[in-house]
Amino acid sequence: MITATRQVPHATPTKSADHTRIRLLIHGGAGAILREKLALDREQAHRRALTDSLHAGHTVLAAGGSSIDAVIAAIVTMEDSPLFNAGKGSVFNHEGRNEMDASIMDGDSRMAGAVAGVTTVRNPIRAAHAVMTQSKHVLLIGAGAERFATEQGLEISDPGYFYTQHRWKQLQQAIASEQIMLDHDADAESAASDNHEKHGTVGAVALDCFGNLAAGTSTGGLTNKRYGRIGDSPIIGAGTYADNRSVAVSATGVGEMFIRTAAAFHTAAQVRLLGTPIDQAAAHTLTEIAAIGGEGGLIVLDPQGRYAMRFSTGGMYRGTIGYDGIAWTGIFTDN
Amino acid sequence: MITATRQVPHATPTKSADHTRIRLLIHGGAGAILREKLALDREQAHRRALTDSLHAGHTVLAAGGSSIDAVIAAIVTMEDSPLFNAGKGSVFNHEGRNEMDASIMDGDSRMAGAVAGVTTVRNPIRAAHAVMTQSKHVLLIGAGAERFATEQGLEISDPGYFYTQHRWKQLQQAIASEQIMLDHDADAESAASDNHEKHGTVGAVALDCFGNLAAGTSTGGLTNKRYGRIGDSPIIGAGTYADNRSVAVSATGVGEMFIRTAAAFHTAAQVRLLGTPIDQAAAHTLTEIAAIGGEGGLIVLDPQGRYAMRFSTGGMYRGTIGYDGIAWTGIFTDN
Repeated sequence: MITATRQVPHATPTKSADHTRIRLLIHGGAGAILREKLALDREQAHRRALTDSLHAGHTVLAAGGSSIDAVIAAIVTMEDSPLFNAGKGSVFNHEGRNEMDASIMDGDSRMAGAVAGVTTVRNPIRAAHAVMTQSKHVLLIGAGAERFATEQGLEISDPGYFYTQHRWKQLQQAIASEQIMLDHDADAESAASDNHEKHGTVGAVALDCFGNLAAGTSTGGLTNKRYGRIGDSPIIGAGTYADNRSVAVSATGVGEMFIRTAAAFHTAAQVRLLGTPIDQAAAHTLTEIAAIGGEGGLIVLDPQGRYAMRFSTGGMYRGTIGYDGIAWTGIFTDN
Repeated sequence: MITATRQVPHATPTKSADHTRIRLLIHGGAGAILREKLALDREQAHRRALTDSLHAGHTVLAAGGSSIDAVIAAIVTMEDSPLFNAGKGSVFNHEGRNEMDASIMDGDSRMAGAVAGVTTVRNPIRAAHAVMTQSKHVLLIGAGAERFATEQGLEISDPGYFYTQHRWKQLQQAIASEQIMLDHDADAESAASDNHEKHGTVGAVALDCFGNLAAGTSTGGLTNKRYGRIGDSPIIGAGTYADNRSVAVSATGVGEMFIRTAAAFHTAAQVRLLGTPIDQAAAHTLTEIAAIGGEGGLIVLDPQGRYAMRFSTGGMYRGTIGYDGIAWTGIFTDN
């Protein structure tokens, strides 16, 4: 009698620490983010939030922490910010609830964890990590995933915690216009503040001083979504992938297209199988997505610290930080 | 304002029909299936069920039907058989319910659909197909997926429909021994009838007379599973993938490992990016899975009608049929 699957790390040679190679990349969603439509205070707020996330991850890496812990620290910071469509600030589904998804993967062991359709876990990325480390499984969904997170002692929040007024207005607008809206798409009323926001999924990829990669992604999905719709964020291979033999990837965009093209894994596969430079690999993945009518962005990082932040949309909230601790943030095509 | 994702088929040149190229492959799960442990009547019953499935798909293909419709016909036949861990005959979760997953993908348009955690849809593969063709989404889960299936007019069954005595015994045994069992693993009492059964997921890949590929997979998951655990079967890129530019793939085995290796997409990627012969590509995918401690099987089919049925377990229920309509079935390594 064989018990269920166990995530078996493969043997890892002991690696020496090199604190100069640490690197973290983050994204806070891609979309039609245009400089002329983004109010300066909104731009500054987003840049501050991205910078906070970069510093949170950098603190972990600089102290010799693992890439997994850096990814968690960076993503938790964005989940806790109301500016992004993940954790607090998640969009509302048709029933007026926040239904969140997240995934995480360790590039050394290729262990992975994910949750989908959770409504009360304050930090879905922590739940994904608990699935990876404390269960034999990779993907848990719905009430079962919440029960697991609760049993693991993760912080459970009242639904009111996730509420933000502008997401609620977006839902009412969407219901009125019978549209399923992408992430935090604009509505007519709040166009000035929201028109720049799309695909507000957050993600991070990190390289630690031991040369290990990790990737993670977290999202609130689509405004007014129904029927338990799940996008690419909790899907290992679509929204998230990490493999020390190639790259770590986190994606954001039209989730369905990223699933159909196995976007994160495809990016890694090009690097591993063909030796494609990572920027070209990311660009080709976006070309594949465009061929079926999709758009979005990717952050990609390899074990040498080379990285790419590619998007086919007007802009992507993004940033990176390395050994020197100087946070770089970008939003538009020209930064 | 942009509404949610739409699955956009890419332009397809008109293809001429060639009825001699049709091909269907199916699997009914891989596991420690040994000739000396499988009673002759059980072997014959499985071979008959596989043959019925092959004929159902062949009837579609021979009449000029699409590879998608052939995959559905073949899988519905196995879902309706109590012998396989899909549809009727699905294993029970910890709460004594049948929680089923399925996915389907069209190699021409690369459109895809999937459902996870459905409990009342008689044929989960039909629900996956409805998601692909009647929604803008790829993956729907839980109660939302059931509501969608109901609204689409799919057949809803009383939970009693899915009940089979030997699955119920397996659950009681598993609960007693506190194990999460893989598919229809053996229990001590029914070892004679069940010991050959593992990873009883079903799947099909087909090539139609127009040269279009399709793939689908359907499963009842793990006996005694908890927490809304989802395996690879409903994950596009892990359990199922189809792309006319490379191959159609359906997988069965330790789902977590197939997710972590993006098994179906990885097989397709080797063919598309490197031109790897399909049998080698399938073998390499299984090597990747073995490297992280997993096992299972794959069926793979390309647009020229070349195919592979590979497994790293003791056996795999499998079969194929082509233009001549002669069904071939295999169970053990030596057929």
